[in-house]
Amino acid sequence: MAGKVYLIGAGPGDPDLLTVRALRLLQSAELVVHDRLVSPEIMALVPSAARRVPVGKSAGFHSVPQDRINEILVELALEGHSVIRLKGGDPLIFGRGSEEAEALAAAGIPYSYIPGITAAQGASASTGVPLTHRGLATGVRYVTGHRAQDATLDLAWESLADPDTTLVVYMGAGNMAEIAARLIAAGMPVDLPVLAVSHATTPRETRLLSDLTQIGADLARAPMEAPVLFMIGRVAGLYETAALPLPRDLRSAHLRVVSNG
Amino acid sequence: MAGKVYLIGAGPGDPDLLTVRALRLLQSAELVVHDRLVSPEIMALVPSAARRVPVGKSAGFHSVPQDRINEILVELALEGHSVIRLKGGDPLIFGRGSEEAEALAAAGIPYSYIPGITAAQGASASTGVPLTHRGLATGVRYVTGHRAQDATLDLAWESLADPDTTLVVYMGAGNMAEIAARLIAAGMPVDLPVLAVSHATTPRETRLLSDLTQIGADLARAPMEAPVLFMIGRVAGLYETAALPLPRDLRSAHLRVVSNG
Ligand SMILES: C[S@@+](CC[C@H](N)C(=O)[O-])C[C@H]1O[C@@H](n2cnc3c(N)ncnc32)[C@H](O)[C@@H]1O
Ligand SMILES: C[S@@+](CC[C@H](N)C(=O)[O-])C[C@H]1O[C@@H](n2cnc3c(N)ncnc32)[C@H](O)[C@@H]1O
Repeated sequence: MAGKVYLIGAGPGDPDLLTVRALRLLQSAELVVHDRLVSPEIMALVPSAARRVPVGKSAGFHSVPQDRINEILVELALEGHSVIRLKGGDPLIFGRGSEEAEALAAAGIPYSYIPGITAAQGASASTGVPLTHRGLATGVRYVTGHRAQDATLDLAWESLADPDTTLVVYMGAGNMAEIAARLIAAGMPVDLPVLAVSHATTPRETRLLSDLTQIGADLARAPMEAPVLFMIGRVAGLYETAALPLPRDLRSAHLRVVSNG
Repeated sequence: MAGKVYLIGAGPGDPDLLTVRALRLLQSAELVVHDRLVSPEIMALVPSAARRVPVGKSAGFHSVPQDRINEILVELALEGHSVIRLKGGDPLIFGRGSEEAEALAAAGIPYSYIPGITAAQGASASTGVPLTHRGLATGVRYVTGHRAQDATLDLAWESLADPDTTLVVYMGAGNMAEIAARLIAAGMPVDLPVLAVSHATTPRETRLLSDLTQIGADLARAPMEAPVLFMIGRVAGLYETAALPLPRDLRSAHLRVVSNG
Protein backbone atom coordinates (compact mmCIF):
# COMPACT_ATOMS: atom_id res chain seq x y z
CA MET A 1 0.00 0.00 0.00
CA ALA A 2 1.26 3.48 -0.89
CA GLY A 3 2.34 5.74 1.95
CA LYS A 4 1.01 9.23 2.46
CA VAL A 5 3.00 12.36 1.60
CA TYR A 6 2.85 15.36 3.92
CA LEU A 7 3.68 18.59 2.08
CA ILE A 8 4.85 20.65 5.02
CA GLY A 9 5.78 24.29 5.35
CA ALA A 10 8.73 24.66 7.72
CA GLY A 11 8.31 28.42 8.06
CA PRO A 12 11.12 30.97 7.72
CA GLY A 13 13.72 29.29 9.91
CA ASP A 14 13.01 29.65 13.62
CA PRO A 15 11.84 26.21 14.85
CA ASP A 16 9.55 27.99 17.30
CA LEU A 17 7.58 29.21 14.27
CA LEU A 18 6.80 25.71 13.04
CA THR A 19 3.16 24.87 13.42
CA VAL A 20 2.35 22.35 16.09
CA ARG A 21 1.28 19.86 13.41
CA ALA A 22 4.51 20.30 11.45
CA LEU A 23 6.62 19.79 14.57
CA ARG A 24 4.73 16.66 15.53
CA LEU A 25 5.07 15.14 12.05
CA LEU A 26 8.75 16.08 11.90
CA GLN A 27 9.53 14.49 15.24
CA SER A 28 7.97 11.19 14.26
CA ALA A 29 9.42 11.19 10.74
CA GLU A 30 11.07 8.14 9.26
CA LEU A 31 11.88 9.81 5.92
CA VAL A 32 12.32 13.51 5.16
CA VAL A 33 12.67 14.96 1.67
CA HIS A 34 13.85 18.53 2.21
CA ASP A 35 14.86 21.71 0.41
CA ARG A 36 18.10 23.49 1.23
CA LEU A 37 16.01 26.46 2.35
CA VAL A 38 14.96 24.57 5.49
CA SER A 39 17.11 25.89 8.35
CA PRO A 40 19.69 23.73 10.15
CA GLU A 41 17.84 24.48 13.40
CA ILE A 42 14.74 22.80 11.98
CA MET A 43 16.62 19.89 10.42
CA ALA A 44 18.05 19.28 13.90
CA LEU A 45 14.53 18.31 15.02
CA VAL A 46 14.40 15.36 12.62
CA PRO A 47 15.05 12.09 14.51
CA SER A 48 18.60 10.89 13.95
CA ALA A 49 17.31 7.52 12.72
CA ALA A 50 15.25 9.12 9.97
CA ARG A 51 16.43 8.99 6.37
CA ARG A 52 17.15 12.44 4.87
CA VAL A 53 16.79 13.10 1.15
CA PRO A 54 18.05 16.58 0.22
CA VAL A 55 16.66 17.96 -3.06
CA GLY A 56 17.84 21.43 -4.19
CA LYS A 57 17.41 24.32 -4.36
CA SER A 58 19.80 27.06 -3.55
CA ALA A 59 21.93 29.29 -5.74
CA GLY A 60 25.29 27.72 -6.45
CA PHE A 61 24.23 24.18 -5.64
CA HIS A 62 23.25 21.71 -8.27
CA SER A 63 19.57 21.22 -7.60
CA VAL A 64 17.32 18.34 -8.44
CA PRO A 65 14.90 19.33 -11.24
CA GLN A 66 11.26 19.61 -10.16
CA ASP A 67 10.20 16.65 -12.35
CA ARG A 68 12.73 14.45 -10.62
CA ILE A 69 11.60 15.63 -7.18
CA ASN A 70 8.05 14.68 -8.14
CA GLU A 71 9.28 11.22 -9.20
CA ILE A 72 11.25 10.74 -5.99
CA LEU A 73 8.17 11.51 -3.89
CA VAL A 74 6.04 9.10 -5.94
CA GLU A 75 8.67 6.35 -5.76
CA LEU A 76 9.15 6.65 -2.00
CA ALA A 77 5.40 6.67 -1.35
CA LEU A 78 4.86 3.67 -3.62
CA GLU A 79 7.51 1.82 -1.61
CA GLY A 80 5.11 2.29 1.31
CA HIS A 81 6.94 5.05 3.13
CA SER A 82 5.18 7.82 4.95
CA VAL A 83 7.00 10.80 3.43
CA ILE A 84 7.64 14.13 5.12
CA ARG A 85 8.20 16.65 2.32
CA LEU A 86 9.67 19.69 4.04
CA LYS A 87 9.80 23.09 2.34
CA GLY A 88 10.80 26.56 3.48
CA GLY A 89 7.96 28.91 4.39
CA ASP A 90 4.54 27.83 3.10
CA PRO A 91 4.29 24.98 0.59
CA LEU A 92 1.68 26.83 -1.49
CA ILE A 93 3.44 30.20 -1.78
CA PHE A 94 6.29 29.96 -4.32
CA GLY A 95 6.83 26.47 -2.96
CA ARG A 96 5.64 24.33 -5.89
CA GLY A 97 3.78 22.16 -3.40
CA SER A 98 0.80 21.90 -5.71
CA GLU A 99 2.96 20.64 -8.58
CA GLU A 100 4.16 17.84 -6.35
CA ALA A 101 0.57 17.20 -5.30
CA GLU A 102 -0.47 16.86 -8.95
CA ALA A 103 2.17 14.20 -9.51
CA LEU A 104 1.08 12.37 -6.36
CA ALA A 105 -2.60 12.53 -7.30
CA ALA A 106 -1.81 11.18 -10.76
CA ALA A 107 -0.12 8.18 -9.10
CA GLY A 108 -3.02 7.67 -6.68
CA ILE A 109 -0.97 8.63 -3.64
CA PRO A 110 -2.70 10.38 -0.72
CA TYR A 111 -1.27 13.69 0.43
CA SER A 112 -2.07 16.66 2.61
CA TYR A 113 -0.69 20.15 3.08
CA ILE A 114 0.47 21.68 6.33
CA PRO A 115 0.78 25.45 5.92
CA GLY A 116 3.81 27.33 7.23
CA ILE A 117 4.64 30.89 8.16
CA THR A 118 5.74 32.39 4.86
CA ALA A 119 8.97 34.42 4.69
CA ALA A 120 7.05 37.70 4.42
CA GLN A 121 5.29 37.05 7.73
CA GLY A 122 8.50 35.94 9.40
CA ALA A 123 10.37 39.05 8.25
CA SER A 124 7.44 41.24 9.23
CA ALA A 125 7.08 39.91 12.78
CA SER A 126 10.82 39.82 13.34
CA THR A 127 11.62 43.33 12.10
CA GLY A 128 8.42 44.98 13.33
CA VAL A 129 7.36 46.15 9.85
CA PRO A 130 3.67 45.30 9.29
CA LEU A 131 2.39 43.96 5.97
CA THR A 132 -0.78 46.06 6.19
CA HIS A 133 -1.25 49.18 8.31
CA ARG A 134 -4.06 51.72 8.38
CA GLY A 135 -3.13 54.74 6.32
CA LEU A 136 0.03 53.13 4.92
CA ALA A 137 -0.99 49.90 3.19
CA THR A 138 -4.49 48.63 2.46
CA GLY A 139 -3.21 45.29 1.22
CA VAL A 140 -0.14 43.20 0.49
CA ARG A 141 1.17 41.44 -2.58
CA TYR A 142 3.77 38.69 -2.96
CA VAL A 143 5.67 38.42 -6.24
CA THR A 144 8.80 36.62 -7.39
CA GLY A 145 11.77 38.55 -8.71
CA HIS A 146 13.31 35.46 -10.21
CA ARG A 147 13.68 35.07 -13.94
CA ALA A 148 14.63 32.15 -16.12
CA GLN A 149 18.16 32.29 -17.56
CA ASP A 150 18.39 34.96 -20.29
CA ALA A 151 14.69 35.78 -20.02
CA THR A 152 13.39 39.25 -19.24
CA LEU A 153 11.65 40.00 -15.98
CA ASP A 154 8.04 39.47 -16.82
CA LEU A 155 6.07 41.38 -14.22
CA ALA A 156 3.01 43.60 -14.62
CA TRP A 157 4.82 46.80 -13.66
CA GLU A 158 1.87 49.16 -13.99
CA SER A 159 -0.23 46.96 -11.74
CA LEU A 160 2.61 46.57 -9.25
CA ALA A 161 3.22 50.30 -8.97
CA ASP A 162 0.54 50.82 -6.33
CA PRO A 163 1.93 52.72 -3.33
CA ASP A 164 -1.09 51.66 -1.21
CA THR A 165 -0.05 48.02 -1.41
CA THR A 166 2.95 46.54 0.35
CA LEU A 167 4.98 44.71 -2.29
CA VAL A 168 6.99 41.75 -1.07
CA VAL A 169 9.56 40.37 -3.48
CA TYR A 170 10.70 36.77 -3.03
CA MET A 171 13.77 35.47 -4.91
CA GLY A 172 14.61 39.00 -5.97
CA ALA A 173 18.17 39.60 -4.78
CA GLY A 174 19.75 39.10 -8.20
CA ASN A 175 17.40 41.48 -9.97
CA MET A 176 16.61 44.11 -7.39
CA ALA A 177 18.28 47.03 -9.19
CA GLU A 178 16.19 46.35 -12.29
CA ILE A 179 12.99 45.76 -10.30
CA ALA A 180 13.44 49.04 -8.47
CA ALA A 181 14.12 50.95 -11.69
CA ARG A 182 11.05 49.47 -13.35
CA LEU A 183 8.85 50.32 -10.39
CA ILE A 184 10.08 53.91 -10.46
CA ALA A 185 9.48 54.06 -14.23
CA ALA A 186 5.94 52.80 -13.60
CA GLY A 187 5.28 55.64 -11.17
CA MET A 188 6.38 54.52 -7.71
CA PRO A 189 7.97 57.27 -5.56
CA VAL A 190 11.78 57.37 -5.94
CA ASP A 191 12.21 57.42 -2.18
CA LEU A 192 9.75 54.63 -1.42
CA PRO A 193 11.29 52.68 1.48
CA VAL A 194 12.63 49.16 0.93
CA LEU A 195 13.55 46.83 3.76
CA ALA A 196 15.71 43.86 2.74
CA VAL A 197 15.86 40.99 5.23
CA SER A 198 18.24 38.05 5.01
CA HIS A 199 17.74 34.81 6.99
CA ALA A 200 14.68 36.27 8.71
CA THR A 201 13.84 34.83 12.17
CA THR A 202 17.18 33.02 12.53
CA PRO A 203 20.30 34.04 14.51
CA ARG A 204 21.80 34.89 11.09
CA GLU A 205 19.16 37.53 10.34
CA THR A 206 20.45 40.78 8.84
CA ARG A 207 18.53 43.79 7.58
CA LEU A 208 19.07 46.71 5.26
CA LEU A 209 16.82 49.74 5.11
CA SER A 210 17.06 51.54 1.78
CA ASP A 211 14.77 53.03 -0.87
CA LEU A 212 13.90 52.34 -4.48
CA THR A 213 16.64 54.62 -5.82
CA GLN A 214 19.42 53.27 -3.61
CA ILE A 215 18.66 49.59 -3.12
CA GLY A 216 20.54 48.38 -6.22
CA ALA A 217 23.74 50.22 -5.30
CA ASP A 218 23.39 49.28 -1.63
CA LEU A 219 23.24 45.57 -2.49
CA ALA A 220 26.11 45.86 -4.96
CA ARG A 221 28.26 47.40 -2.24
CA ALA A 222 27.24 44.99 0.50
CA PRO A 223 25.59 41.84 -0.88
CA MET A 224 23.28 40.04 1.51
CA GLU A 225 23.40 36.30 1.97
CA ALA A 226 20.54 34.24 0.48
CA PRO A 227 17.70 33.89 1.27
CA VAL A 228 16.74 37.56 1.04
CA LEU A 229 13.27 39.05 1.03
CA PHE A 230 12.33 42.62 0.08
CA MET A 231 9.47 44.56 1.66
CA ILE A 232 8.69 47.58 -0.51
CA GLY A 233 6.24 50.26 0.54
CA ARG A 234 5.41 52.95 3.02
CA VAL A 235 5.21 50.37 5.82
CA ALA A 236 8.96 49.75 5.45
CA GLY A 237 9.48 53.37 6.55
CA LEU A 238 8.18 52.37 9.98
CA TYR A 239 11.45 50.53 10.44
CA GLU A 240 13.07 53.83 11.40
CA THR A 241 10.86 54.20 14.46
CA ALA A 242 9.50 50.71 15.17
CA ALA A 243 12.38 48.33 14.45
CA LEU A 244 12.50 45.34 16.77
CA PRO A 245 15.80 43.82 17.94
CA LEU A 246 17.40 40.99 15.95
CA PRO A 247 16.30 37.48 16.93
CA ARG A 248 18.32 36.02 19.75
CA ASP A 249 19.79 32.57 19.63
CA LEU A 250 17.21 29.91 19.02
CA ARG A 251 16.92 27.65 21.98
CA SER A 252 14.27 25.37 20.59
CA ALA A 253 16.34 22.43 19.46
CA HIS A 254 14.95 20.39 22.33
CA LEU A 255 11.29 21.08 21.73
CA ARG A 256 8.92 18.22 22.19
CA VAL A 257 5.25 18.23 21.31
CA VAL A 258 3.21 15.63 23.08
CA SER A 259 -0.43 14.99 22.28
CA ASN A 260 -2.47 13.12 24.83
CA GLY A 261 -5.74 13.92 23.03
CA MET B 1 7.46 47.57 36.15
CA ALA B 2 5.39 47.31 32.98
CA GLY B 3 4.61 43.84 31.67
CA LYS B 4 5.31 42.75 28.13
CA VAL B 5 2.61 42.40 25.49
CA TYR B 6 2.74 39.47 23.07
CA LEU B 7 0.87 40.27 19.85
CA ILE B 8 0.08 36.74 18.76
CA GLY B 9 -1.44 35.35 15.60
CA ALA B 10 -3.72 32.43 16.45
CA GLY B 11 -3.98 31.24 12.85
CA PRO B 12 -7.22 30.38 11.06
CA GLY B 13 -8.83 28.21 13.73
CA ASP B 14 -7.29 24.75 13.94
CA PRO B 15 -5.20 24.66 17.15
CA ASP B 16 -2.77 22.35 15.38
CA LEU B 17 -1.90 25.31 13.14
CA LEU B 18 -0.77 27.49 16.02
CA THR B 19 2.94 28.06 15.98
CA VAL B 20 4.85 26.30 18.71
CA ARG B 21 5.70 29.67 20.29
CA ALA B 22 2.07 30.79 20.28
CA LEU B 23 0.93 27.55 21.89
CA ARG B 24 3.60 27.77 24.58
CA LEU B 25 2.70 31.38 25.42
CA LEU B 26 -1.01 30.58 25.42
CA GLN B 27 -0.60 27.65 27.77
CA SER B 28 1.27 29.70 30.34
CA ALA B 29 -0.98 32.75 29.99
CA GLU B 30 -2.31 34.59 33.01
CA LEU B 31 -4.24 37.18 30.97
CA VAL B 32 -5.57 36.90 27.41
CA VAL B 33 -7.06 39.79 25.44
CA HIS B 34 -8.74 38.15 22.45
CA ASP B 35 -10.76 38.87 19.32
CA ARG B 36 -13.97 37.02 18.61
CA LEU B 37 -12.32 35.61 15.49
CA VAL B 38 -10.17 33.32 17.65
CA SER B 39 -11.75 29.87 17.48
CA PRO B 40 -13.32 28.18 20.52
CA GLU B 41 -10.91 25.27 19.99
CA ILE B 42 -8.00 27.65 20.53
CA MET B 43 -9.60 29.48 23.45
CA ALA B 44 -9.97 26.05 25.08
CA LEU B 45 -6.17 25.92 25.35
CA VAL B 46 -6.05 28.95 27.64
CA PRO B 47 -5.55 27.83 31.27
CA SER B 48 -8.82 27.98 33.19
CA ALA B 49 -7.25 30.22 35.82
CA ALA B 50 -6.29 32.85 33.25
CA ARG B 51 -8.29 36.05 32.96
CA ARG B 52 -10.01 36.48 29.58
CA VAL B 53 -10.73 39.92 28.12
CA PRO B 54 -12.83 39.67 24.94
CA VAL B 55 -12.60 42.73 22.65
CA GLY B 56 -14.71 42.61 19.45
CA LYS B 57 -14.88 42.21 16.57
CA SER B 58 -17.46 40.27 14.69
CA ALA B 59 -20.41 41.40 12.64
CA GLY B 60 -23.51 41.84 14.78
CA PHE B 61 -21.65 42.15 18.06
CA HIS B 62 -20.88 45.43 19.67
CA SER B 63 -17.14 45.64 19.35
CA VAL B 64 -14.63 47.59 21.37
CA PRO B 65 -13.22 50.49 19.28
CA GLN B 66 -9.54 50.13 18.33
CA ASP B 67 -8.52 53.14 20.44
CA ARG B 68 -10.07 51.56 23.48
CA ILE B 69 -8.36 48.22 22.78
CA ASN B 70 -5.06 50.07 22.63
CA GLU B 71 -5.81 51.69 25.99
CA ILE B 72 -6.78 48.38 27.57
CA LEU B 73 -3.49 46.81 26.50
CA VAL B 74 -1.51 49.76 27.84
CA GLU B 75 -3.42 49.76 31.15
CA LEU B 76 -3.00 46.03 31.72
CA ALA B 77 0.71 46.13 30.90
CA LEU B 78 1.25 49.15 33.17
CA GLU B 79 -0.40 47.17 35.97
CA GLY B 80 2.50 44.76 35.50
CA HIS B 81 0.69 41.99 33.70
CA SER B 82 2.26 39.92 31.00
CA VAL B 83 -0.43 40.26 28.32
CA ILE B 84 -1.26 37.71 25.65
CA ARG B 85 -2.99 39.63 22.85
CA LEU B 86 -4.55 36.96 20.68
CA LYS B 87 -5.76 37.70 17.14
CA GLY B 88 -7.10 35.56 14.33
CA GLY B 89 -4.65 34.68 11.56
CA ASP B 90 -1.52 36.84 11.50
CA PRO B 91 -1.33 39.98 13.65
CA LEU B 92 0.26 42.00 10.83
CA ILE B 93 -2.14 41.10 8.01
CA PHE B 94 -5.42 43.00 8.45
CA GLY B 95 -4.93 42.48 12.16
CA ARG B 96 -4.09 46.02 13.31
CA GLY B 97 -1.29 44.56 15.40
CA SER B 98 1.01 47.41 14.45
CA GLU B 99 -1.50 50.02 15.63
CA GLU B 100 -1.53 48.36 19.01
CA ALA B 101 2.26 48.23 18.94
CA GLU B 102 2.40 51.98 18.28
CA ALA B 103 0.28 52.64 21.35
CA LEU B 104 2.46 50.32 23.43
CA ALA B 105 5.68 51.90 22.19
CA ALA B 106 4.33 55.37 22.99
CA ALA B 107 3.74 54.21 26.56
CA GLY B 108 7.18 52.62 26.81
CA ILE B 109 5.80 49.09 27.01
CA PRO B 110 7.83 46.23 25.49
CA TYR B 111 6.11 44.00 22.94
CA SER B 112 6.83 41.37 20.35
CA TYR B 113 4.95 39.79 17.46
CA ILE B 114 4.35 36.10 16.95
CA PRO B 115 3.22 35.49 13.37
CA GLY B 116 0.29 33.19 12.61
CA ILE B 117 -0.95 31.27 9.61
CA THR B 118 -3.11 33.80 7.81
CA ALA B 119 -6.62 32.83 6.66
CA ALA B 120 -5.50 32.64 3.00
CA GLN B 121 -2.89 30.02 3.84
CA GLY B 122 -5.31 28.06 6.02
CA ALA B 123 -7.97 28.02 3.31
CA SER B 124 -5.37 27.12 0.70
CA ALA B 125 -3.90 24.17 2.57
CA SER B 126 -7.30 22.92 3.69
CA THR B 127 -9.05 23.06 0.32
CA GLY B 128 -6.03 22.10 -1.80
CA VAL B 129 -6.12 25.33 -3.86
CA PRO B 130 -2.59 26.81 -4.07
CA LEU B 131 -1.94 30.54 -3.78
CA THR B 132 0.71 30.43 -6.51
CA HIS B 133 1.06 27.74 -9.17
CA ARG B 134 3.27 27.60 -12.26
CA GLY B 135 1.27 28.61 -15.30
CA LEU B 136 -1.75 29.72 -13.27
CA ALA B 137 -0.59 32.36 -10.79
CA THR B 138 2.81 34.05 -10.60
CA GLY B 139 1.93 35.81 -7.35
CA VAL B 140 -0.75 36.42 -4.76
CA ARG B 141 -2.40 39.51 -3.37
CA TYR B 142 -4.42 40.04 -0.20
CA VAL B 143 -7.00 42.85 -0.12
CA THR B 144 -9.87 43.78 2.14
CA GLY B 145 -13.41 43.95 0.79
CA HIS B 146 -14.63 45.85 3.82
CA ARG B 147 -15.84 49.42 3.52
CA ALA B 148 -16.70 52.01 6.09
CA GLN B 149 -20.45 52.66 6.54
CA ASP B 150 -21.86 54.55 3.52
CA ALA B 151 -18.44 54.81 1.89
CA THR B 152 -17.68 53.45 -1.57
CA LEU B 153 -15.38 50.52 -2.07
CA ASP B 154 -12.06 52.16 -2.61
CA LEU B 155 -9.92 49.60 -4.41
CA ALA B 156 -7.54 50.04 -7.34
CA TRP B 157 -9.65 47.97 -9.76
CA GLU B 158 -7.38 48.27 -12.79
CA SER B 159 -4.42 47.10 -10.77
CA LEU B 160 -6.43 44.27 -9.19
CA ALA B 161 -7.67 42.96 -12.53
CA ASP B 162 -4.58 40.86 -13.17
CA PRO B 163 -5.51 37.27 -14.04
CA ASP B 164 -1.93 36.11 -13.36
CA THR B 165 -2.23 37.01 -9.68
CA THR B 166 -4.36 35.12 -7.19
CA LEU B 167 -6.58 37.67 -5.48
CA VAL B 168 -7.60 36.86 -1.93
CA VAL B 169 -10.38 38.98 -0.45
CA TYR B 170 -10.63 39.22 3.34
CA MET B 171 -13.76 40.72 4.95
CA GLY B 172 -15.51 40.70 1.61
CA ALA B 173 -18.72 38.71 2.15
CA GLY B 174 -20.97 41.77 2.34
CA ASN B 175 -19.63 43.33 -0.85
CA MET B 176 -18.78 40.37 -3.02
CA ALA B 177 -21.36 41.03 -5.74
CA GLU B 178 -20.02 44.54 -6.23
CA ILE B 179 -16.38 43.45 -6.05
CA ALA B 180 -16.99 40.80 -8.71
CA ALA B 181 -18.82 43.24 -10.99
CA ARG B 182 -16.03 45.79 -10.67
CA LEU B 183 -13.37 43.20 -11.43
CA ILE B 184 -15.27 42.14 -14.56
CA ALA B 185 -15.65 45.80 -15.59
CA ALA B 186 -11.88 46.21 -15.15
CA GLY B 187 -11.23 43.32 -17.52
CA MET B 188 -11.18 40.10 -15.50
CA PRO B 189 -12.70 37.07 -17.30
CA VAL B 190 -16.43 36.65 -16.52
CA ASP B 191 -15.93 32.99 -15.73
CA LEU B 192 -12.84 33.44 -13.53
CA PRO B 193 -13.19 30.88 -10.73
CA VAL B 194 -13.93 32.01 -7.16
CA LEU B 195 -13.63 29.71 -4.16
CA ALA B 196 -15.34 30.99 -1.02
CA VAL B 197 -14.31 29.32 2.23
CA SER B 198 -16.05 29.79 5.58
CA HIS B 199 -14.44 28.82 8.90
CA ALA B 200 -11.40 27.43 7.11
CA THR B 201 -9.47 24.68 8.94
CA THR B 202 -12.18 24.12 11.56
CA PRO B 203 -14.84 21.37 11.75
CA ARG B 204 -17.29 24.10 10.64
CA GLU B 205 -15.49 24.68 7.34
CA THR B 206 -17.73 25.05 4.27
CA ARG B 207 -16.81 25.87 0.69
CA LEU B 208 -18.49 27.24 -2.39
CA LEU B 209 -16.97 27.07 -5.87
CA SER B 210 -18.37 29.74 -8.15
CA ASP B 211 -17.16 32.32 -10.66
CA LEU B 212 -17.09 36.10 -10.93
CA THR B 213 -20.47 36.26 -12.69
CA GLN B 214 -22.29 33.95 -10.28
CA ILE B 215 -20.73 34.55 -6.87
CA GLY B 216 -23.05 37.42 -5.87
CA ALA B 217 -26.21 35.46 -6.64
CA ASP B 218 -24.79 32.30 -5.11
CA LEU B 219 -24.11 34.05 -1.80
CA ALA B 220 -27.51 35.78 -1.85
CA ARG B 221 -29.18 32.38 -2.24
CA ALA B 222 -27.07 30.58 0.33
CA PRO B 223 -25.22 32.99 2.62
CA MET B 224 -22.09 31.62 4.25
CA GLU B 225 -21.34 32.08 7.92
CA ALA B 226 -18.60 34.57 8.86
CA PRO B 227 -15.64 34.47 8.65
CA VAL B 228 -15.51 33.98 4.89
CA LEU B 229 -12.52 34.29 2.60
CA PHE B 230 -12.56 34.50 -1.21
CA MET B 231 -9.85 33.08 -3.44
CA ILE B 232 -10.23 34.55 -6.91
CA GLY B 233 -8.17 33.37 -9.87
CA ARG B 234 -7.29 30.51 -12.13
CA VAL B 235 -5.90 28.53 -9.19
CA ALA B 236 -9.43 28.30 -7.75
CA GLY B 237 -10.36 26.25 -10.83
CA LEU B 238 -8.07 23.50 -9.54
CA TYR B 239 -10.71 22.88 -6.87
CA GLU B 240 -12.65 20.84 -9.43
CA THR B 241 -9.88 18.27 -9.72
CA ALA B 242 -7.72 18.73 -6.63
CA ALA B 243 -10.16 19.44 -3.78
CA LEU B 244 -9.11 17.96 -0.46
CA PRO B 245 -11.65 16.58 2.04
CA LEU B 246 -13.10 18.86 4.72
CA PRO B 247 -11.11 19.01 7.98
CA ARG B 248 -12.03 16.29 10.43
CA ASP B 249 -12.78 16.97 14.04
CA LEU B 250 -9.98 18.72 15.81
CA ARG B 251 -8.54 16.52 18.46
CA SER B 252 -5.92 18.92 19.69
CA ALA B 253 -7.60 20.30 22.78
CA HIS B 254 -5.18 18.28 24.87
CA LEU B 255 -2.00 19.45 23.22
CA ARG B 256 0.93 20.18 25.43
CA VAL B 257 4.17 21.74 24.35
CA VAL B 258 7.06 21.05 26.63
CA SER B 259 10.42 22.66 26.21
CA ASN B 260 13.34 21.03 27.91
CA GLY B 261 15.86 23.20 26.02
C1 LIG C 1 11.56 29.39 -3.54
S1 LIG C 1 11.03 30.73 -2.53
C2 LIG C 1 10.19 29.82 -1.28
C3 LIG C 1 9.24 30.66 -0.47
C4 LIG C 1 8.60 29.88 0.66
N1 LIG C 1 7.71 28.83 0.13
C5 LIG C 1 7.84 30.79 1.61
O1 LIG C 1 6.61 30.69 1.68
O2 LIG C 1 8.49 31.58 2.29
C6 LIG C 1 12.56 31.23 -1.77
C7 LIG C 1 12.57 32.69 -1.35
O3 LIG C 1 11.86 32.85 -0.13
C8 LIG C 1 12.42 33.92 0.60
N2 LIG C 1 12.79 33.43 1.94
C9 LIG C 1 12.54 32.21 2.44
N3 LIG C 1 12.95 32.13 3.72
C10 LIG C 1 13.50 33.33 4.03
C11 LIG C 1 14.10 33.87 5.20
N4 LIG C 1 14.22 33.17 6.34
N5 LIG C 1 14.53 35.16 5.16
C12 LIG C 1 14.42 35.89 4.04
N6 LIG C 1 13.85 35.41 2.90
C13 LIG C 1 13.40 34.15 2.90
C14 LIG C 1 13.59 34.45 -0.20
O4 LIG C 1 13.12 35.54 -0.97
C15 LIG C 1 13.92 33.28 -1.09
O5 LIG C 1 14.55 33.70 -2.29
C1 LIG D 1 -10.13 41.38 10.45
S1 LIG D 1 -9.64 40.20 9.25
C2 LIG D 1 -8.36 39.39 10.14
C3 LIG D 1 -7.41 38.60 9.27
C4 LIG D 1 -6.37 37.85 10.07
N1 LIG D 1 -5.46 38.77 10.74
C5 LIG D 1 -5.60 36.86 9.21
O1 LIG D 1 -4.39 37.05 9.01
O2 LIG D 1 -6.20 35.88 8.74
C6 LIG D 1 -10.99 39.04 9.31
C7 LIG D 1 -11.18 38.28 8.00
O3 LIG D 1 -10.25 37.22 7.92
C8 LIG D 1 -10.80 36.15 7.17
N2 LIG D 1 -10.74 34.93 8.00
C9 LIG D 1 -10.13 34.80 9.19
N3 LIG D 1 -10.20 33.53 9.63
C10 LIG D 1 -10.86 32.83 8.69
C11 LIG D 1 -11.24 31.46 8.55
N4 LIG D 1 -10.93 30.53 9.47
N5 LIG D 1 -11.93 31.10 7.43
C12 LIG D 1 -12.23 32.01 6.49
N6 LIG D 1 -11.89 33.30 6.57
C13 LIG D 1 -11.21 33.72 7.65
C14 LIG D 1 -12.22 36.55 6.81
O4 LIG D 1 -12.18 37.10 5.51
C15 LIG D 1 -12.52 37.61 7.83
O5 LIG D 1 -13.50 38.52 7.35
